[in-house]
Amino acid sequence: MPIQTCTVAVVGATGAVGREALKILQQRGVPGERVIALASERSAGASVEYGPSRLSIVALDDRSAERTFQLADVAIFCADADTARTFVPIAVERGALVVDNSSAFRMDPTVPLVVPEVNGALLDVGAEVVANPNCSTILLLVALEPLRRRFGVRSIVVSTYQAVSGAGLAAIDELRMQAGDALAGRTTTKRVFAEPCAFNVFSHDSAVDLRTGLNAEEQKLIDETRKIWDDPRLAITPTCIRVPVERAHSESVVIELREPAHEDEIRLALVSATGVSIIDDRAANAFPTPLKASGVDDVLVGRIRPDPGAGFDGRGRSTRWCLWLSGDQLRKGAALNAVQIAEALLAPASSLAPGTRAPSRVQRWHTGAIIT
Amino acid sequence: MPIQTCTVAVVGATGAVGREALKILQQRGVPGERVIALASERSAGASVEYGPSRLSIVALDDRSAERTFQLADVAIFCADADTARTFVPIAVERGALVVDNSSAFRMDPTVPLVVPEVNGALLDVGAEVVANPNCSTILLLVALEPLRRRFGVRSIVVSTYQAVSGAGLAAIDELRMQAGDALAGRTTTKRVFAEPCAFNVFSHDSAVDLRTGLNAEEQKLIDETRKIWDDPRLAITPTCIRVPVERAHSESVVIELREPAHEDEIRLALVSATGVSIIDDRAANAFPTPLKASGVDDVLVGRIRPDPGAGFDGRGRSTRWCLWLSGDQLRKGAALNAVQIAEALLAPASSLAPGTRAPSRVQRWHTGAIIT
Repeated sequence: MPIQTCTVAVVGATGAVGREALKILQQRGVPGERVIALASERSAGASVEYGPSRLSIVALDDRSAERTFQLADVAIFCADADTARTFVPIAVERGALVVDNSSAFRMDPTVPLVVPEVNGALLDVGAEVVANPNCSTILLLVALEPLRRRFGVRSIVVSTYQAVSGAGLAAIDELRMQAGDALAGRTTTKRVFAEPCAFNVFSHDSAVDLRTGLNAEEQKLIDETRKIWDDPRLAITPTCIRVPVERAHSESVVIELREPAHEDEIRLALVSATGVSIIDDRAANAFPTPLKASGVDDVLVGRIRPDPGAGFDGRGRSTRWCLWLSGDQLRKGAALNAVQIAEALLAPASSLAPGTRAPSRVQRWHTGAIIT
Repeated sequence: MPIQTCTVAVVGATGAVGREALKILQQRGVPGERVIALASERSAGASVEYGPSRLSIVALDDRSAERTFQLADVAIFCADADTARTFVPIAVERGALVVDNSSAFRMDPTVPLVVPEVNGALLDVGAEVVANPNCSTILLLVALEPLRRRFGVRSIVVSTYQAVSGAGLAAIDELRMQAGDALAGRTTTKRVFAEPCAFNVFSHDSAVDLRTGLNAEEQKLIDETRKIWDDPRLAITPTCIRVPVERAHSESVVIELREPAHEDEIRLALVSATGVSIIDDRAANAFPTPLKASGVDDVLVGRIRPDPGAGFDGRGRSTRWCLWLSGDQLRKGAALNAVQIAEALLAPASSLAPGTRAPSRVQRWHTGAIIT
């Protein structure tokens, strides 16, 4: 059934991703009466924006969970992994379909980890819980999926330029406060990040594994990409970095294909891809930026070029390509992907799940133009 | 002879790199009376800071050039390539040694392109003009040189996070103005960059080659690295990106070595390297940042780890390594490297030129502790 006729619970509705999920549901035409906004007890009594109106926050506890998930057809969890581990089982038991944005179930072999444009076919067979991947992984795979389908992927080197919003709304406040203090020549304070985030860049703030030297964000990129592509030995070399940007992530990518390709073939594959828009004007030096990607559903891709460190075969083809992408991590990197999963779960046989074959242009998704 | 007893001309003394060169000369103990600060006619009558005092700007034209370069033992050009092409030949003719920061002579086969820690031995045989490499190239090669000497380098993939100061002082003003406007919710203006630079990242503002898709900054990284390392076929895959940072550049690097190495060997090579400081505390998530590198002479290196996309040999060694660096592009990336070249040109047999053999710790350079 279409999501507009369902009851939808949003857990973590006051957070950065939760607010974005509400915005998308409202844009989709889900009536406010059918949306239950839940948050921690700290937010009890508060309300959140829902288009022109507001929704009262329901404090999430064992009692409200029982009642809410009984009512809800689908629950979109936009909370942390601990909250998910506690309340997702209750939601499932009460019969709600669950899409979880946290890392709690992503690597659980019984839980599908889905980017609809990539492995949306998994949703056609139904699932009680579906995990939403990490933002950097979603944006990367939406951009690379058309190349993987056509030419295969042997390896990826990716360096990220990640917005502070990945660390929540408080991180956006911290960026603004620190920037204002720096401009005024005032000393500033740090709460969210250990490093100053204004006018600075720093290695991602997730914990670093003492043995491998990888931070948790990099490990997620590796593990989740291998699971989503069902390619457990894929070579991925990530470096995850925070930049003083509010809400969209960017990634510098070098990809090695299994089959060599002409530049025309690379461009054709990307232009016809679901969820991808190309901004690649060499003459005007106009390429994707996080500001251009903010509030946009598609992943923006540009700087498409052959790797100058690799050669061409006798037919002018190369296996190594570079590109640059920007994508809104709160939308496609989190809330939008989760809503798309929910829609496909609720309407599994519809055209919303493009399956694992290359989608035709007719199936392209656009904001506000969903075919149900 | 030591630079403290020489007459030094600084061309482009009012620019970001020129001001930094003056600061370094003053820190080195060169008396103000021995420094001639030149700039374009727009700056005629102005003065620039030189420690506690100020230097009057000499407007650079044919007449002042003749007189100045007759007096000067060494001229440090911190101006654009056109200025260098016009006035470097005059300086040479009048007998001044020249260090040129612009791109005018970098790829001239008769002009040495020097990073003292890498190929400083070239200065021992004397040269009339020495080119100072591009900032990103200098910072990268200072960090990688110890690995190249010990294990050889087969390929480099590098993504940069470049400060706006590479585009001059006006770019720093633009970043501050745009950031202030954004915080106040005001619409803002662009003059230096085509893209907004506050709270945004964007592909480097240098011209993009329509055929290769590489911007000029990326092409410089490739060409200059190959020249400095005398390795014309080295595989380099650069992506150059601007970030809203005032003055230090950072780089995410994946390097493939010719010989496999243990992590201990990699760390030992980097710890004992000239011009490199290690900040690599996995437990504290403390690594190089541009704020930590600002005003510092050494290139800061951290996030040293084996490439998770590559394997180990039977002895636990790998040929592929990742690292992250930050370096002050106005100091080591430009003015400091130029002053170091000038010092070595003036005192070619001294220990200032570490040569092409691995330097001992005794030869390490530190701010204000130069052995002449």
